[in-house]
Amino acid sequence: MPLSIREFEALARDRLPADVYDFVAGGAEDEVTLRANESAFGRLRLLPRVLRGPATRELGVSLLGMDATMPVLIAPTAFHRLAHPEGEKLTARAAAAAGAIMIVSMGSTVAIEDIADAGGQSLALWFQLYVQPDWAVTEALVRRAERAGCRALVVTVDLTVFGRRERDHRNGFHDLPEGLHCENLRGIAGERGVRQIESTPELSWEHIDRLRATTALPIVLKGLMHPLDAVMAVGHGVSGVIVSNHGGRQLDTAMATIDALPDVAEAVNGRIPVLLDGGVRRGTDVVKALALGASAVAVGRPVIWGLAVAGAAGVTQVLELLRDETDRALGLCGCACLHEVTRDLVQAAPC
Amino acid sequence: MPLSIREFEALARDRLPADVYDFVAGGAEDEVTLRANESAFGRLRLLPRVLRGPATRELGVSLLGMDATMPVLIAPTAFHRLAHPEGEKLTARAAAAAGAIMIVSMGSTVAIEDIADAGGQSLALWFQLYVQPDWAVTEALVRRAERAGCRALVVTVDLTVFGRRERDHRNGFHDLPEGLHCENLRGIAGERGVRQIESTPELSWEHIDRLRATTALPIVLKGLMHPLDAVMAVGHGVSGVIVSNHGGRQLDTAMATIDALPDVAEAVNGRIPVLLDGGVRRGTDVVKALALGASAVAVGRPVIWGLAVAGAAGVTQVLELLRDETDRALGLCGCACLHEVTRDLVQAAPC
Amino acid sequence: MPLSIREFEALARDRLPADVYDFVAGGAEDEVTLRANESAFGRLRLLPRVLRGPATRELGVSLLGMDATMPVLIAPTAFHRLAHPEGEKLTARAAAAAGAIMIVSMGSTVAIEDIADAGGQSLALWFQLYVQPDWAVTEALVRRAERAGCRALVVTVDLTVFGRRERDHRNGFHDLPEGLHCENLRGIAGERGVRQIESTPELSWEHIDRLRATTALPIVLKGLMHPLDAVMAVGHGVSGVIVSNHGGRQLDTAMATIDALPDVAEAVNGRIPVLLDGGVRRGTDVVKALALGASAVAVGRPVIWGLAVAGAAGVTQVLELLRDETDRALGLCGCACLHEVTRDLVQAAPC
Amino acid sequence: MPLSIREFEALARDRLPADVYDFVAGGAEDEVTLRANESAFGRLRLLPRVLRGPATRELGVSLLGMDATMPVLIAPTAFHRLAHPEGEKLTARAAAAAGAIMIVSMGSTVAIEDIADAGGQSLALWFQLYVQPDWAVTEALVRRAERAGCRALVVTVDLTVFGRRERDHRNGFHDLPEGLHCENLRGIAGERGVRQIESTPELSWEHIDRLRATTALPIVLKGLMHPLDAVMAVGHGVSGVIVSNHGGRQLDTAMATIDALPDVAEAVNGRIPVLLDGGVRRGTDVVKALALGASAVAVGRPVIWGLAVAGAAGVTQVLELLRDETDRALGLCGCACLHEVTRDLVQAAPC
Repeated sequence: MPLSIREFEALARDRLPADVYDFVAGGAEDEVTLRANESAFGRLRLLPRVLRGPATRELGVSLLGMDATMPVLIAPTAFHRLAHPEGEKLTARAAAAAGAIMIVSMGSTVAIEDIADAGGQSLALWFQLYVQPDWAVTEALVRRAERAGCRALVVTVDLTVFGRRERDHRNGFHDLPEGLHCENLRGIAGERGVRQIESTPELSWEHIDRLRATTALPIVLKGLMHPLDAVMAVGHGVSGVIVSNHGGRQLDTAMATIDALPDVAEAVNGRIPVLLDGGVRRGTDVVKALALGASAVAVGRPVIWGLAVAGAAGVTQVLELLRDETDRALGLCGCACLHEVTRDLVQAAPC
Repeated sequence: MPLSIREFEALARDRLPADVYDFVAGGAEDEVTLRANESAFGRLRLLPRVLRGPATRELGVSLLGMDATMPVLIAPTAFHRLAHPEGEKLTARAAAAAGAIMIVSMGSTVAIEDIADAGGQSLALWFQLYVQPDWAVTEALVRRAERAGCRALVVTVDLTVFGRRERDHRNGFHDLPEGLHCENLRGIAGERGVRQIESTPELSWEHIDRLRATTALPIVLKGLMHPLDAVMAVGHGVSGVIVSNHGGRQLDTAMATIDALPDVAEAVNGRIPVLLDGGVRRGTDVVKALALGASAVAVGRPVIWGLAVAGAAGVTQVLELLRDETDRALGLCGCACLHEVTRDLVQAAPC
Repeated sequence: MPLSIREFEALARDRLPADVYDFVAGGAEDEVTLRANESAFGRLRLLPRVLRGPATRELGVSLLGMDATMPVLIAPTAFHRLAHPEGEKLTARAAAAAGAIMIVSMGSTVAIEDIADAGGQSLALWFQLYVQPDWAVTEALVRRAERAGCRALVVTVDLTVFGRRERDHRNGFHDLPEGLHCENLRGIAGERGVRQIESTPELSWEHIDRLRATTALPIVLKGLMHPLDAVMAVGHGVSGVIVSNHGGRQLDTAMATIDALPDVAEAVNGRIPVLLDGGVRRGTDVVKALALGASAVAVGRPVIWGLAVAGAAGVTQVLELLRDETDRALGLCGCACLHEVTRDLVQAAPC
Repeated sequence: MPLSIREFEALARDRLPADVYDFVAGGAEDEVTLRANESAFGRLRLLPRVLRGPATRELGVSLLGMDATMPVLIAPTAFHRLAHPEGEKLTARAAAAAGAIMIVSMGSTVAIEDIADAGGQSLALWFQLYVQPDWAVTEALVRRAERAGCRALVVTVDLTVFGRRERDHRNGFHDLPEGLHCENLRGIAGERGVRQIESTPELSWEHIDRLRATTALPIVLKGLMHPLDAVMAVGHGVSGVIVSNHGGRQLDTAMATIDALPDVAEAVNGRIPVLLDGGVRRGTDVVKALALGASAVAVGRPVIWGLAVAGAAGVTQVLELLRDETDRALGLCGCACLHEVTRDLVQAAPC
């Protein structure tokens, strides 16, 4: 088994078709943000505490009333069957085994009901939603997620227009291969076949308000970077935000998420949980995000690499690597639990 | 068709003679400024807003009373016939088709009247002027531009002496090839043949004042970098300034234009439009310049790459790429129009 | 003989088995801290004084009442017999010859008594201690060090859990080769064979207090990075601290030690000596550490490279190189002795 | 002829024996300062003024009552006959032809009298002096310089001990080749042969005071970096200082000279001229040094490259390149003379 997530990526690159690898690994335009998400963690330095005596560390976290055994969620990424024939089913099994929360992509290639079945009762599923121009479709998707037992809605707000991923244009990778479909949109809103996911450029706070009126599920906004938007989010009663730039796949040269986090966390000021995705590859990255104000982080591409390398066992190994590294980093920072990870443990490296 | 302006450059490099490519692509001395113009954009990060609901974006801009469909002008670059036999005629056609303003170089290899004909009524042409030591020549050029229907004079102020471009010295590239001439200087001021363009090292504000007394056309100063000069420009009644270092071709190690822009914009304080050229290669570059105080930007070398790759269609594609990328970037920043691009959308990347 | 410590490393790399080289040279996870320890010195610039007239320089230093001829100690590193069959015996001889203080690793592959014999009366030995979960073992180790004539205890506080060194995992390097043992744990606390070194994750200030009550030896804490812990150390009556991140082998992305030093030194404010290890490879590094508040530094890997290249003579040469370079750097900075190395001699390089 | 000083270096490298090239080009230890001297100029950006109308530029400068046609002096470097059989004679001819001040190294391989002869009446010669431990020798050297018509003494203060240049150790380059000698020490102070140059580690302000009492020549201190020493220099009545780190050949990781200049200039506050050497390779470097407070700069290695490539004509070309580039840079910065080069023309590049 690979020793690190970066080794998982190297192995996955060997196993996946080149265009699939590029689709997963790539980002928008010059991929500045894609690289910045990872490298920004490297610029941050830990300043550990010692002699504080945590014999063991408690990595558990409670988010929106749900308990998880680790502060690493599975970020919503589309099309897991590109990486393994059983796709999201295996991801769900691994998440359940690890006690991690899984955010299912609206663009999953296995239907949400089957994912829920595979994960079993213990698995906390959150459903990622792109608000669709046709509200009836949006509402039907919400109901479907509710019925499948999802416990939160993660509304992606940074895909009002599609980012331009030039690798995909070069590879001619525009559609799912024969046999793969966005199963959550099959038969949705009375349609016969599989609806296409559409973007909603006019997406606004009114849509968020309307969603809140539509469902009792907690709503989490994903793709928020600006502290003023974080203040708006609190004002509109959402239950959490995920600082994200869509893994560098949408607006190129957007700030690295770990660099955007501190101002968002300060603006939110603890009123709702702040999560982060983008570039998390090590336990020390997790600790840095916690120190800078996140309650937890999510990982996307590493899950795909795990699936590609070894199916459910691969995803499990990815999660266990992150758990082990986070535990070790906590211990070496003198922290017995996530709440002891304070702001002063992180400083920018002198340039 | 290439997917990006950098791909256009790569293709153009294959198609152009090496000395012509070097003449266009190169810069002064060690080319520090040449590279800095581009790389300085990369150091700036966007901090987008979300959920502000622009279903579509309006990219139109009004400059000196002229409307353009996009905030990207064609910067004045000499000798388009080096890139394509029909040279500036095609550039004008593409600008007209795109609804962009074209700044014609005084050193064009097609006469301004023919460029105006090719562009047609709808095309807003501005004429770039090097003040000549012999004022009669300068005045004759102004009259010629007026008669040809040009609607503004862009006076270049950063070529009082010639920058040293060592690529051209190595290539022995000092004159236009047989058959190409600066057609705007043919027969100028009663001369029989084609006059050479001369530099005017004594160029001063008195020349600008005299030009204002000579013509009713609005005057824009190009090649200004220092905020104190921007204040002078407003005091001398010019209609606009273009922050420019001549594409890195004059004073090497001059500051990157995007780094010089904020202080100039602050000094001007909205009294006249501030434009910028130098290093703009992506829609996100356009948005960054707008956020830092520019009303619009201009692109020079990309137009030549477009001509070299596919003539008028190439220039069109260059402009449409920039329009599309700017539109996408605006949308992903939550901006419905150029005026919504505020200063807080841009931050320097931590170093 | 090599001209510099980096040349010693290059030669040692050729001579050592690859897995041994990796064990010594490597660090935790992505080795960010490993590299940062060295490169952070390179970012600091010396601003020398002139015409202050030191005909010769005095490099002597007094630490915890012991005199050394140079402000460079031998840091505790395990397993010197990996580099040379006689291991720590030779290191002790070289240290004695150089008049340097040697901190013997608890994990030495020669017993402390034999090291003391080899070093002779003149050699000041400090004993590095990992507090063991079984206090009886800890106490037995302290007594053994006392009986062998060690004059200080250096308690390592940054190994409460083991860092993950991926080179060793890849090489399958987990145990000492046949015939090598941690001789200080042979027969310890009444045990028959050689006990394994264990980590003590619950290590706390109570252990330090208890150690102080157990022995009259001065206690130095090694592995402290945070100024708040330095304040705690003074409060708990320890005699010195070593700013260290375990040579980048424990918590990856921990701050470089030279970057952590100034805040620790300020917090300690001269009440106890502050030492530093990590990345010291040149006399100018020594001078920089002194300027930023250290009383002395320690070197670990360079000693191993010296042993591997030329046994005791190699270690001697490593120490004499550092002495010579430090002397030269002091002279060129206009300093007659270590106390004249003031804070203003060092500035960060502009970035 | 080469187009730039860096091209001169490349050509000289081809022509000189490798050990001679290394001796000239190399620096102390890791050569951090050697590289920093050049690269620090690259980090500084010019912010030019426009429309100020200097038809021509005046590059003349008056230093210690002597007029030079350009603000670039020939820095003292030893052993010009390593680069060309006629050595310093040719350098003097080129300096005279250019109207530049030449600082003759005490370690010249042609005697000062012969250099003065070669340069002729018009050439302003300054004599560089290492104070020798035997004062009689020092005094004899001063008298010899006076008699030869030298008009200033440049006392080097940063060679109290010898820097360690590892290239020379690797090459075994320790002595001048057969037939070359430090001719200024031939027969000095009654000695028969050629004395060796010695360092004087106890060099102090008393030596400077004693020199002032010994000669009426103005005294310039070379090798000063710290603003406190600059204040001392003014207090001790010296006539000028040269900010220098001996071209990176003495204390490695010393600050780049252009980075040290501003604080020195501020401390001196115009009371005596401040010069700078180290890393000057372009006219823009000259302008930056002037903007940051220097009255002039000196170049060392470029002169050797000129000699090696084309003898006196090569040195002339090096000086004319610098004159031409400085003139061009002044013009493009809108400066009619050196006094118009103000502090605001230079800014650090954002990092």
